[in-house]
Parts: sequence; structure tokens; C-alpha cells
Amino acid sequence: MNSIPLNTLGTPVEPPLQRIPAGIASLADYARQAQKHIEAHAWAHIESGAEQGLTLARNRAALERLLLLPEPLADLSRASTAQMLLGQRLEWPVLLAPVAYQRLAHPEGELAGARAAMAMRTAMVVSTLSSYSLEDIAQAACGAAAELGRRAPLWFQLYSQPERQHTLALVRRAEAAGYQALMWTVDASIKRSSYPLPAGVEAANLRGMPQARQTSDLMSEHILFGTPLAAQAPGWDELQWLRGQTQLPLIVKGILSPRAARRALELGADALVVSNHGGRVLDSAVSPVEVLADIRTAMGPDIPLLLDSGIRQGTDVFKALALGANAVMIGRPQFHGLAVAGMLGMAHMLHALRAEFELAMAQMGCARLDEISADSLRRTA
Amino acid sequence: MNSIPLNTLGTPVEPPLQRIPAGIASLADYARQAQKHIEAHAWAHIESGAEQGLTLARNRAALERLLLLPEPLADLSRASTAQMLLGQRLEWPVLLAPVAYQRLAHPEGELAGARAAMAMRTAMVVSTLSSYSLEDIAQAACGAAAELGRRAPLWFQLYSQPERQHTLALVRRAEAAGYQALMWTVDASIKRSSYPLPAGVEAANLRGMPQARQTSDLMSEHILFGTPLAAQAPGWDELQWLRGQTQLPLIVKGILSPRAARRALELGADALVVSNHGGRVLDSAVSPVEVLADIRTAMGPDIPLLLDSGIRQGTDVFKALALGANAVMIGRPQFHGLAVAGMLGMAHMLHALRAEFELAMAQMGCARLDEISADSLRRTA
Amino acid sequence: MNSIPLNTLGTPVEPPLQRIPAGIASLADYARQAQKHIEAHAWAHIESGAEQGLTLARNRAALERLLLLPEPLADLSRASTAQMLLGQRLEWPVLLAPVAYQRLAHPEGELAGARAAMAMRTAMVVSTLSSYSLEDIAQAACGAAAELGRRAPLWFQLYSQPERQHTLALVRRAEAAGYQALMWTVDASIKRSSYPLPAGVEAANLRGMPQARQTSDLMSEHILFGTPLAAQAPGWDELQWLRGQTQLPLIVKGILSPRAARRALELGADALVVSNHGGRVLDSAVSPVEVLADIRTAMGPDIPLLLDSGIRQGTDVFKALALGANAVMIGRPQFHGLAVAGMLGMAHMLHALRAEFELAMAQMGCARLDEISADSLRRTA
Amino acid sequence: MNSIPLNTLGTPVEPPLQRIPAGIASLADYARQAQKHIEAHAWAHIESGAEQGLTLARNRAALERLLLLPEPLADLSRASTAQMLLGQRLEWPVLLAPVAYQRLAHPEGELAGARAAMAMRTAMVVSTLSSYSLEDIAQAACGAAAELGRRAPLWFQLYSQPERQHTLALVRRAEAAGYQALMWTVDASIKRSSYPLPAGVEAANLRGMPQARQTSDLMSEHILFGTPLAAQAPGWDELQWLRGQTQLPLIVKGILSPRAARRALELGADALVVSNHGGRVLDSAVSPVEVLADIRTAMGPDIPLLLDSGIRQGTDVFKALALGANAVMIGRPQFHGLAVAGMLGMAHMLHALRAEFELAMAQMGCARLDEISADSLRRTA
Repeated sequence: MNSIPLNTLGTPVEPPLQRIPAGIASLADYARQAQKHIEAHAWAHIESGAEQGLTLARNRAALERLLLLPEPLADLSRASTAQMLLGQRLEWPVLLAPVAYQRLAHPEGELAGARAAMAMRTAMVVSTLSSYSLEDIAQAACGAAAELGRRAPLWFQLYSQPERQHTLALVRRAEAAGYQALMWTVDASIKRSSYPLPAGVEAANLRGMPQARQTSDLMSEHILFGTPLAAQAPGWDELQWLRGQTQLPLIVKGILSPRAARRALELGADALVVSNHGGRVLDSAVSPVEVLADIRTAMGPDIPLLLDSGIRQGTDVFKALALGANAVMIGRPQFHGLAVAGMLGMAHMLHALRAEFELAMAQMGCARLDEISADSLRRTA
Repeated sequence: MNSIPLNTLGTPVEPPLQRIPAGIASLADYARQAQKHIEAHAWAHIESGAEQGLTLARNRAALERLLLLPEPLADLSRASTAQMLLGQRLEWPVLLAPVAYQRLAHPEGELAGARAAMAMRTAMVVSTLSSYSLEDIAQAACGAAAELGRRAPLWFQLYSQPERQHTLALVRRAEAAGYQALMWTVDASIKRSSYPLPAGVEAANLRGMPQARQTSDLMSEHILFGTPLAAQAPGWDELQWLRGQTQLPLIVKGILSPRAARRALELGADALVVSNHGGRVLDSAVSPVEVLADIRTAMGPDIPLLLDSGIRQGTDVFKALALGANAVMIGRPQFHGLAVAGMLGMAHMLHALRAEFELAMAQMGCARLDEISADSLRRTA
Repeated sequence: MNSIPLNTLGTPVEPPLQRIPAGIASLADYARQAQKHIEAHAWAHIESGAEQGLTLARNRAALERLLLLPEPLADLSRASTAQMLLGQRLEWPVLLAPVAYQRLAHPEGELAGARAAMAMRTAMVVSTLSSYSLEDIAQAACGAAAELGRRAPLWFQLYSQPERQHTLALVRRAEAAGYQALMWTVDASIKRSSYPLPAGVEAANLRGMPQARQTSDLMSEHILFGTPLAAQAPGWDELQWLRGQTQLPLIVKGILSPRAARRALELGADALVVSNHGGRVLDSAVSPVEVLADIRTAMGPDIPLLLDSGIRQGTDVFKALALGANAVMIGRPQFHGLAVAGMLGMAHMLHALRAEFELAMAQMGCARLDEISADSLRRTA
Repeated sequence: MNSIPLNTLGTPVEPPLQRIPAGIASLADYARQAQKHIEAHAWAHIESGAEQGLTLARNRAALERLLLLPEPLADLSRASTAQMLLGQRLEWPVLLAPVAYQRLAHPEGELAGARAAMAMRTAMVVSTLSSYSLEDIAQAACGAAAELGRRAPLWFQLYSQPERQHTLALVRRAEAAGYQALMWTVDASIKRSSYPLPAGVEAANLRGMPQARQTSDLMSEHILFGTPLAAQAPGWDELQWLRGQTQLPLIVKGILSPRAARRALELGADALVVSNHGGRVLDSAVSPVEVLADIRTAMGPDIPLLLDSGIRQGTDVFKALALGANAVMIGRPQFHGLAVAGMLGMAHMLHALRAEFELAMAQMGCARLDEISADSLRRTA
């Protein structure tokens, strides 16, 4: 009966493409095409935002209301998009955000993503909730990078576990596998999802570790407050502890206020990600784009700031940098690229974004990243 | 022919569900599902706003344009949503607003609602226009509360009647039945509706009392002004009189200006409800969310302020408290919960809202209600 | 073939109703229902705005973004909507705006309108472009008013003709027929319409008078500038001349700036109508609601100001008065009322609007027109 | 199979009309009708904007949010729309913007356009990328102008070529063919399009000249930066060189900032076009209407400023002049006019726009272009 999985359009899920049709030239094109290749429930899970999706929509709206003031005729003969960030060379300022369970989009999941990232000279941040193990992903990335004669830029995203011994085990495994930075996520210790993972998809890194969950029993005295989930949620002391456990650069992800930014730095963070988790955790949360400039002002020019949530166009990347980010990360588009054509789709999606970003720099008269500033921005009235 | 009642989708009205499907997890889900279970004319009556529905839509828009600035990593180990209000303990800051004629949604109407409220530790405000008598509802509530070893938090909403003897009779009956507070509504003495109640649904508390109505005779000299309806509409003196008649806490519902708030307190009100009656009485009326902060500022920190009109998400509750409310009330969602699955639906709807509210507090870094403040809010540009 | 006229829904035009169904209770309901009763091209002509309809839409938007701050519990026992205006008693502050060719909506056209106006105690402003003669309309109005033991409040709207002798002839005929005021329209001397009047509909007052038209010949040297239409368009001197020709109160219609308002008064106008001609003459024109307060401030409290363009709800009337208008006029709703049910429809449409206005006053705590002020208004952010 | 070309409505492309139906009376009507007459891929190419079309939409929105404050009763007996610009008499302030490949819309392409422009007394700016040669177009224009006893107002738009010898060859050919001004475009040296021109349509002026293109090879080290396209893109030195090569008035097109405007004038430009290239080159670019007033203020009253991007109504022309433009240009509407009815369609489209503009001037109380000022404008709140 329902042995044939359907996509959200109501037609059978289509297999990944072997080559990219001419009509697919932007991340929006990828999103449209990907609908055909992803099963309906997985699609709903990937695309959804918290509650009514207000923040999900706002992430785009906040970017779209920023206008750009072009400057023609700049000298582009030595133009470049490269920079040094946390001791590593980034060829262009877009990273793959940590996203969970990429096998939902393609059987090769994070392995395909890692290979595409290496080919496109993009750093990948592997999720604690990856559907392949962090070791397998590192191996795939290093293999692909070696073939191209490059070093693999690989970071690991860390979710604190109910017990610190398990958190520490993840850190040690990431160090051993050659990851070059840790990105600790602080905005999703407590969230809500009723999506049951399909067969064959699991949190490969967490086998055997216990997980706390929100109570859904109608007659229970407690829902969240008063349960282990609230009691075990990490606090600021966790950051202090974590800082003492590793020499890797430590990036805190999920910051939206100058207050939290300041505290994270005081406790030893090396960099921050301004993010509302793609609109997935709190409906009505401000969009990173709306608070980034304040955080940059409060933190000064030197602390590395990344931004994610809502980046879909080359001009978005430009706007984020103009507001003070050093680089941005993209999340859902990874699923779209993978679903459309696996490693090839991911690579081509990244190529399209980079082409748009270079065009934006050219139109804006910027030949280097440090020429990008808020002088180029106007807010719509 | 039309012996089979149709819903607003044009299909036969479906009976209430016996269990809640997994896909129903929010008040918006309940609203969608309820459409199938409520007859079309009743649905139109329940969902409609005054005139063109501008204020109805504004109630949502005013909430949605408030943004939240999350703070991560707070200590939630002793988090709680409880408070004392008018001498009673409220487990969480949501009450059931007084809504008329709940038998429109379910045969057990207010009886099912009262039982669900007790189970979910929510206070219920029973309407003068309830479709079961205030005594029957009190009995259902007390029975359910006793089973759970709790006291029933029950308040009574009062509409002034054309003659004071009838108003007084309602007060005495509420006192006798054990209601613990009176909520006197001042914004709907004069309104307009052409919805004829279906057979079996009536204002159970008003049997035998006379009612004044607006003239609809085309050739009459007067429509509203110059008729008994205008002449008998209660004024501020009614509040003074009412205050002298009862020792119960007296809450005035339907306040939107600091001027009216001040006067109500001078005349003896113990608390206020900032409300535009769910957008049902004056199209273009301001939304409570837009005036709440001004009223809190004018009244000082101690007077209990409730807010209703438009609350549909956990973040809405948080926003109302951040603007100065002590608690909020929900109206139409009661119909949705009842229609979908009677007492079970009402209870689960409340559970979903409480879960969302606790998640909002957690994301906002608030472990107690008194940590919620306007510092967390941003208005959209 | 096309002997059966179709409405804009693509179905045959329906004859007027003989009684009003319960579902029709507002001007919006009338607009919806009227679509069925008016031929498609006539409908397009009646409903259209200039060019792309931006101003037409803005007329509603400008009203809708004004919010009202209700005040409960006012004493309404002696409430009234009456006032004196230009020496006449107006029972409530709504007049029938001058609209052309009412036979497009109903065979009895302005005759039915005049009778309904008298029944509903509304003043009617008869258009120069009426499809019955001004004398026939006056006779219908006086007959109806006499039956009800009232005096007929009738004003005449004047378009200047290419030659002053014809303009003067219209003035003399209006005086002779008993019209009590002249409303001279200044914003539509030059406009554009390609709607060919159907058989049996004509400008009954202008038989035998010459008319100037815009050139539509593609190869002509001139379109508007350089043609008789531009040369003969009336200027401010026309007002001075007109003032010298009649003792009737003279109202200038089509004012949107304090500058023009001031000049009109200097040249002898007794009152002004702030109007953009229902959005029919200049796309992107400001809406009267946006400029009314400035004009009131510039003119002082005594000069009578009317407003039209966009009034569709009782709260709209309240808002216009709060901004400084003495009364408002409605245009297109007249066609809707007539088309739905002739004189009965017009009367019932007016009754609905008056009921809404009285309810608005009651909710706003205003028992008399002079209690309505801008203190009640809030603008949306 | 697909030998019958389809339009974007999915029906066969219709041949051009021989006469204009009554229902086509505005540029919006032309756009709607043109959809039937243009092949789907060509339509998508013509109508599209950069990336997600944000700037394309903004060009309209920025115009639509400007409101006009009419002034009635002006003396129009000597009204005129004429002016002198760069030494030439313009009968009305609208020019045909340089648009590429007009054969996409009609077999006679630019030849029909040139003849229509002459008939309607509009200056035409011929594109470097015209689908007929600049010499053929000049011949068609001069022939048409001579028949009407007029001089042909013809300007040439110049794109810099990878090698200056080819750029100079275009300049010399334009001079030789009688073009009276050069408009050098600076905002599209680097852009992105994947539209393959259909058979029979080519850049007639560029036969034999080399063209640089963006790299689309996925595995290439470089996309734009580091390729010949970036290296050969013209800089400000190109303007200095160009100024030294010709005596024709030199207009720089594609300016959006006072900084670029100032530099262009310093290097010898005689006039500027404030333009975002119809939203085709940078998504999120500001709209010319938003920056025009700043540029006029910075440049002073004497430097000729043209504006394009988004002009579709007579009121748009008025608004642009009120903000400081001397004249405007229209782009896509040329395709619409040509596609609907060739030369006749182009001429009638221009006639409709001029009629709207004259009506706007009349309603605004302006009898001459120099009476148009920013005093007439209001911005929507």
C-alpha cells in the first residue's frame, strides 16, 4: 500500500539526479527541486520552524529588507574572497552548518556532503546528530581533500549530553579524528519535535548514550519544568568545564544578545555563532541579522563572529559580512543539494552560491572581504 | 434534506474524536481540526469579529510583531510557572476566558470544559451566557477537582441585566455555588449579532429574565440611541453599586485605556482584564497587547492585570507577561478543544499550550514568572 | 447571442431583490451581493480607480490603519447623532455623494435613491451627470419627504461646462427645483474613461450642451495639453464668478491641500469636501483621511468640512469625524444598495451604516457628535 | 513536436495584432497582452530580475509608496511637456531605454521601435546589444523622422568591450551613423544569464568581436574573481579614456550613489542615468527612486539626471521629475508594445503613457515641467 514513499507534492519520491539540469541555478531552485526527492514527513521535519513559523519567515524577511548601494567600476583584477579564520584559511566565507541526519536526504548523507565541501573548498561543521559517525565523515573528507592535494577543513559541533562523561567522550573522539575546532550549541538543549526518524537513520555518534525527553503524558504533574530534561540542561558552568577539557578552538553557537556574547567570551570561547537555530527552537525569536551589528559593536572587531539562519543568496552573505560577520553558515540548503544529486548537487549548490557572492562583491565595488562594510547597506523604510 | 448538518468545509459535521492524533500538537492544529467538528453557522458565529474583522486580525498581528531576545544556559533546575493571584494559587498563568454557549461545540459544553480545566490546573471563568447553569458547572468542576484532591479554581463572569434585581440574583447564585471571584464585563452591553442559537442551546442562567435588543425595524425612528438598549446600558454607577453588593474579589473586564483603568480602581475593582472582547465588539479597536504596557505603567506594579484577545501560542503568553500582565485568558481555543474531543480535547489543548509556554521560558532564560520583563522584547521595525 | 447581459461573475445579471436576505448586514455584504445584479462592464466602470487602482486601495488602507481606543460605561440615555450643517439639520452625519448615472444599477436610478434618502433622513447630493433630470429627482424626493412629514434635504453637485452660460443654466435650474446648496466639483474637469454608456443611460441634465473630450487620435500633435479640453478647464476665476451668481451655500468638492482650502474660502466657498473622487482621477493621490487633520487645523474649527472616498463602515464615519470632518459622504455603496433591491436596498444599506455608527459611538463612549475627537485615535505602527 | 512555440500561458504564441483593441489602454494592459505574443523562454528572460527578483519588485514598490498631493484649478491653457536636454528638444520627458535584442518580441525589432519613437516624438537610445545593426536602426529612424518633417533624436548606448579597439570602433560607427549622444553603461560589465538566444537573434553590432564569460565549470579554481572577466572589467580609467575619444555628449548609466555620481562628473560625464538596470544585475540593490533626491542634492540643479527602472505609469514619470530627474526611460514596456502590435503597438503604448503623464500634470496643477517639485510628494507612513 504505502510501500511507495511519497513526496510533499503527493507524487513518488524521485531518485537523485545524475546531472544538474540547466534550470537549477540558485539555492531557491534547489529547494524547489528537492521537494520531489524527499519523503513528505522528512521534508516537513527539515523545513519546519518552531510553532507557527514566524521566526522561520522572519529570517528571510530580515535579510530581504536590507538594501545594497552598489558602486560601479571598481578594480577587480586582484579580487579575492579568502581570509584567515581561527588559524585556518577559508577560501570563501561560507561554511556548512551542523545539521542532523543528512541520510534523510540521500543515502550517502554526510559522507557525500563532506566530499562536496572539500571539492568546493568549504569548511564543514559535522553535527553531534550526524547519521554517519564523526570518524567515518572525517575519513571521507580527508580522502577527498587528499585527492585534491588540500587539507580538510573540518569542525565538530557538540551537544552537551545528560552526563559529562558522554560529552567528554565526544570531544575526545573529535580530537582523535582530526577535527580542528569545536562548535558548542547552546540554544537547543530543550526543544520539541515529534518527528520519528525513519528506519536506518539514527544519531550515529550517540549509540549507547542516554537521552532525556520532554514529558508528553497528559496527566503528569510536570511537562518540562520539574523533569530531568530541565534539571540536566547545561548552564554557563558547562562552558567553563568544557574550556578546561580541550585545546581546540571553542566556538559557542546560538548567541543572540550582547550579554550572552560577553559571558561566553569571559568563560573562554574563541568565537561565536549568532544564530536562532534556523527558526527551529523559539517562535518569535529575533533574527540573527537584526542583532548582529549590536553584538559586533559590543565585542569589538577582533572576535570571530559567524552567522547562520536564513542565508540563501549571494547577497545575503554580503549583507551578513557588512553587518559584522566574518563568515556565514548554511543549513537546509545542504539537504536540498544532497537530495537533488548527492555529492554533485551539494557541490553545484555551493558553486552557485559562491558565484552569486562574487557577483555581489563585484557589483558592490569590493575586491576583498575587508572592503565590505555597513556603508553599503540601507534599511527599507 | 438539510437534516445532516454541514461544517464550514461543506462536509458533514464529524463527531468528537476519542483520542488525539499525533498531528495535533498546537492551538493552530486544534483550530484547523475543529472546523470539521462544528456546524458551519456556529463556526461563523464563533470565529467572527466585529464588522470586517480588522481588530480580529490585529489581535494576532500585534502579538506577532513582538520579537523575543533569547538568553541561553539559564539554570532551570528549580523552574516554576506558579504564582498567587487574588489570593489563589495559579499553577500556570493561563485561564479559561468566559465564553458563551459552549454546547455549540460539544454536547457536554461547559461541564466538559470545567472538568478539563481542573485536570490541567487551570482556572475557569464561567460566562453569564453559559449553556449549562452556573450551579451545574460548579458541581462538575468541584467533582473533578475533588477526585484529584484539589480545590476548584472557579470564577464567574457577570453581565449586568436590564434590571438590577436580576444582576443581583446572578451574584447571589455565584456566591452560593462557590465561585471565588466575579468578573464584570463592561465592553459588550451593546453589541450586534444576528446569529440565532440552534435548538437546545440557550443562556441557561438567564431563564425568565428580560433582555433588551437593538431595533432592526427599517422604518423605526431609532436604531440604538433613543431605545431602551441605550437607556439601560450600565454606567460607572453600576460598578459602585456592584462593589457594595459582594465581598468577592471584583474584576472589571473590557478595559483598554489608562483612564478607564483608573476609574475602575477608584470605584473598587480589585483587578482588570485588558481585552477587546476577542475583536467581537468594535472593529478597529486597539489590541490589548498595544495598550497593556501603558496601563501597567499607569496602575503601578501591584494591581492584578489579565489580558485576553488573540493568545494562541506559548510565546504569546510570555509576551503578555513581559508587557505587564499577571496572566492571560484564552477564548475561542476552548471551542476548538471541546469540538475536537470534548474534555480530552480541552485538556490536551491546554497541555500543548503549557508545554509551549515552559519552552518559551526556558529559551528566554526565565526560571520564574517574576524574571519575565520587557527587556526580553523587541518590536519589529 | 449576447442578448443576455452577464455580470462580472460570468452569470446572467439577476433582477433586484424584493426583500433583503438575513445574510446582508453591512456595506461589504451589499458590495458582494451587488456583483450579481450589475452588468460586467458597468461594474468595472463603477468599481474602477484611476490607472492601477493604487489610490482606490489606499482609501481603504488609510482608514483601516487608524485604530480606536474605546471608553466603556458612558451614559447613553440621551445619546444623539444629530447636528446643524449649513443651516440644515442632519439627523446623522452621512450624505449621499454625487454619483453619476445611477440607472446603471437600477431602472429607477436616482429616483429610488432620493426616496430612500428621505426615508433614512439622509441628505442627497444630486450629480450634474444624473441619469434622471434634476427636476425629476427633486420631485421624487419632495414627494417622499412630504409623505413622511419631513422637508427634503437636497443639494446639487455642479460640473462647470465648457461655456459659462450652460453652467449658469444648471445653477438656475437647481435653484428653481428647490435644491438647498451647490457642491462645485474641481478635481475632475480633466479625466479619462473609455466606458461607453449603455442604451437608455445618459446625462439627463446636459442634453444639448457641448462637451470637450481628450484626443485619442494616435497621430495627433496633441493629447490633452494644447487641446480645447485643457484650454476650457475651469480655474480659480470660475469660483469667483460662480460665487457672484447664486445665494445658495457653495461647497467646493475635491480639496486635498491646505493651500487649495484656503484659496477656496478666500474666494467665497462656504464649505469644503476633502475628497480624491473615490480614487477615480489620479492614481497615487493621497487619501482624504491622510490630509483631513491638516486641513482642519489650517481652516480652524468653524468651516464645515465633509470627507468622502473610502467610507464603508460605521467606524470609518467615526474616524473621519475624529479627524475633523463634520460629516461624510458615500459613493459606490449607493450603486450596491440600488442594484441589490432598488429603494429598499438603498434604505437598508443606510440603516446598516447608521446602526454601525451608533454602535461605534457607544463603544467609544460618545453620546454626542461633539464628544468625538482625535484623542480616540491611534495610528498603527 | 515542439515546432509550435508556446507562450508562458501554455498556449501557442500569437502573431502581432493589426489594430489595438479598446481594452488595451495602459502599460499594464500591454504587459498582460504581450504574454500571449512572446515565447515562454524569451518572456522569462525579458521579465526576470537578478536572483530572487527582490529588486525587480522593489522598483515598483518604491514608486508606489510615493503619494501625490493634487492642486486643482490651475491654468492649463498654455501647458506644455517640452524641455531642452543636452542641446536637444524633448517633446516629453520619456525616452526609450537601451534594451537588447528586440527581435525577441517582433521580427522588425529595433527598426519598428525606432519608427514608433519618431512618430511619438520620443528619443530612442539604441543598445550595443541591438539585434539590428546601429546603422540600420539609424536609417529606419531617419527615414521615419524625415517623412514627418522632423529630426531623429537618437542616442547610442555603449558597453565597453574586452579590448578598447573594439569599444572605439563602436563609438566611431555611432558617430558616423548620426547618433547624437553616447550613453555608457557601467553596472553590467559583470552579470549572469543562462538564456541562450534563439536562432536569428544576435548582437548585430558585435559580430567578430571577442566576449569574456563567467566560468561555469564546477571544478575550476575560479568562478569570476581570477578570470579574464574580472580582469577585463572596465574601471574609472575607462571613462577618462572614453572622454578623450569623442565630442558627443557622454552620459554615464548605472549610477546609484552620490560618490559615483561625483566621480563620473569629475572625469567628464555630461549627464547621468540613475538606474539599477531594471533590477537585472544585483538583487537587493536600492531602487533609483530611493536615491535620486540625494544624488540631485549632491550634484546641484544643472547636471542632467535621467532615471530608469520601474516606470510604468504617467504618475511614475511625474514622481521621478518631482524627485529631481529631468527625464525617465522605459525598458521592458518596449518589448510589450512591439510584441502586441509592432510599430503600432510601440506607438500606442507611448501615446497612453504620455496621456497619463499629461493628466497627472493637470491634476497636480503643473502647466510646465519646471513647476514639478518635491512639494507635491508625500511618503506613505
